[in-house]
Amino acid sequence: MRRLKDIGEFGLIERFRKSIRTDPSVIKASGDDCAVLKLDKLNYQLFTCDMLAEDVDFTLKDKPYLIGRKAIAVSLSDIAACAGQGRYCVISLGLPKDTPLKFADELFKGMRDISRKYKVNIVGGDLSRSNKIIIDVSMLGQVEKKRLVLRERARPGDIIFMTGELQGPASDKHLKFTPRVEEARFLARNFKINAMIDISDGLVQDLRHILNKSAVGAVIYEDLIPLSKGVRNLSAALNSGEEFELLFTLSRREAQKLLARKVAEFKPIGEIRMKQYGFKLMDKKEQLINITPKGFRHF
Amino acid sequence: MRRLKDIGEFGLIERFRKSIRTDPSVIKASGDDCAVLKLDKLNYQLFTCDMLAEDVDFTLKDKPYLIGRKAIAVSLSDIAACAGQGRYCVISLGLPKDTPLKFADELFKGMRDISRKYKVNIVGGDLSRSNKIIIDVSMLGQVEKKRLVLRERARPGDIIFMTGELQGPASDKHLKFTPRVEEARFLARNFKINAMIDISDGLVQDLRHILNKSAVGAVIYEDLIPLSKGVRNLSAALNSGEEFELLFTLSRREAQKLLARKVAEFKPIGEIRMKQYGFKLMDKKEQLINITPKGFRHF
Repeated sequence: MRRLKDIGEFGLIERFRKSIRTDPSVIKASGDDCAVLKLDKLNYQLFTCDMLAEDVDFTLKDKPYLIGRKAIAVSLSDIAACAGQGRYCVISLGLPKDTPLKFADELFKGMRDISRKYKVNIVGGDLSRSNKIIIDVSMLGQVEKKRLVLRERARPGDIIFMTGELQGPASDKHLKFTPRVEEARFLARNFKINAMIDISDGLVQDLRHILNKSAVGAVIYEDLIPLSKGVRNLSAALNSGEEFELLFTLSRREAQKLLARKVAEFKPIGEIRMKQYGFKLMDKKEQLINITPKGFRHF
Repeated sequence: MRRLKDIGEFGLIERFRKSIRTDPSVIKASGDDCAVLKLDKLNYQLFTCDMLAEDVDFTLKDKPYLIGRKAIAVSLSDIAACAGQGRYCVISLGLPKDTPLKFADELFKGMRDISRKYKVNIVGGDLSRSNKIIIDVSMLGQVEKKRLVLRERARPGDIIFMTGELQGPASDKHLKFTPRVEEARFLARNFKINAMIDISDGLVQDLRHILNKSAVGAVIYEDLIPLSKGVRNLSAALNSGEEFELLFTLSRREAQKLLARKVAEFKPIGEIRMKQYGFKLMDKKEQLINITPKGFRHF
């Protein structure tokens, strides 16, 4: 009998996606950071959900305030990856009945504080009994039609940038990261971004998503990958999930404009090539290495 | 140390709700079947989420097709309770890695088929590893501003109606129920409905929600409660959760118009009274019995 682990997370998602039909009000169904829906003359609505499970995405040793914060931040990051802003969310909570009230309070406070900070309205929820803690946040956002960015428009010659630096798998950045909402809005307002994604599965895996959706290849330069202090293992950092930085591409001309602004948060790390080129890393000895599929997966 | 079970499901929800502030684009945050958001000149957007957990809302002995169907149907039912129609949903799935592929396929087929039937677009999702199956559906719907129905406008003198009949706690109706979307739309198009809710916590509990939100009392008549064949225990039926029928109130005049249409699905079961009256059942011997708080709760 075939089981989930035999086809993997992306295999199962592909399996589901194939059989889905949507009506013309759906600009983009699954396959990007958010679904994109018609809203009004000037704006699209963005719709995304993210589930966090105890012992997978956090443990009971983590601070409940930070767990709650993360539950909202991951959805904010998805919406930022489409260049939008979060507006409303609903929260489904599965909690064991022995959960200390203090834990629930802190969890909720973490959600509430970050929601306020980013002007997201918590408008509803569902509370359920479960044997382990489960938090699922669904968020609605908004983006101007002309500023929407998806994964699928990277072009050969584009420069690949990322925000911040890679923290690597051992860090607790996954609980404390700043969703790159302001950076995304700055980019969308001032530049023509061709493709964007947030690094949730790992830089290599997520850049691969852009390459696949855009039908292009890429080279990234070891020298240019911004690593946090203390990160020794490049390969582990390149495959580290839940970094939640933005990865984006823009034309050489737009890239020059961006570089001229001298904003330290945005760093060029490589270049989009033709599909036939493949996906390569140029190491410090200027040797080209083929990058093979890897990255964090649930199954 | 105080734990969740000490304050209960509704206690925790109240605790969270108190500290939430929303901006003026939010017509109704939590406290009803759906959140209500501004959309355009004529319509509101409805937003709801429902989490189903293995061994709480279904077991592995249930047919996966029906579990998937239910996961969508409960949200459709919430949107129907606000007199709206579902439009888009995102699905978060937590699955153990040993889940048979066939189970996942059937689960998804159940979701897909009922979504198609009610013209809801499945536009995205999130897949996570978990030790028990968790399904969380968030749904967006739409309702004409003038047709929105909440829990809070029941008035003394209103007649209380329900759709269908109570199946009682032992039945498998919770997996097979028809979300009352068509009935809700028929009602909203043709009558002025003052308050409506779907029976997810039990008739008594959900009518109590209407009474509390509307600051009124009520009497229901044992003789008039529609019970499915084979249901012996009235009290159990009145407190049986997950019936998913609609419970609604409308003025005597509107009620007469509705009764004149002779639609068998809608049955009068009682009357809204002043708050001071309380909440009572008139039994078959014409004795008035006070109804005490009860109904399905998660903690």
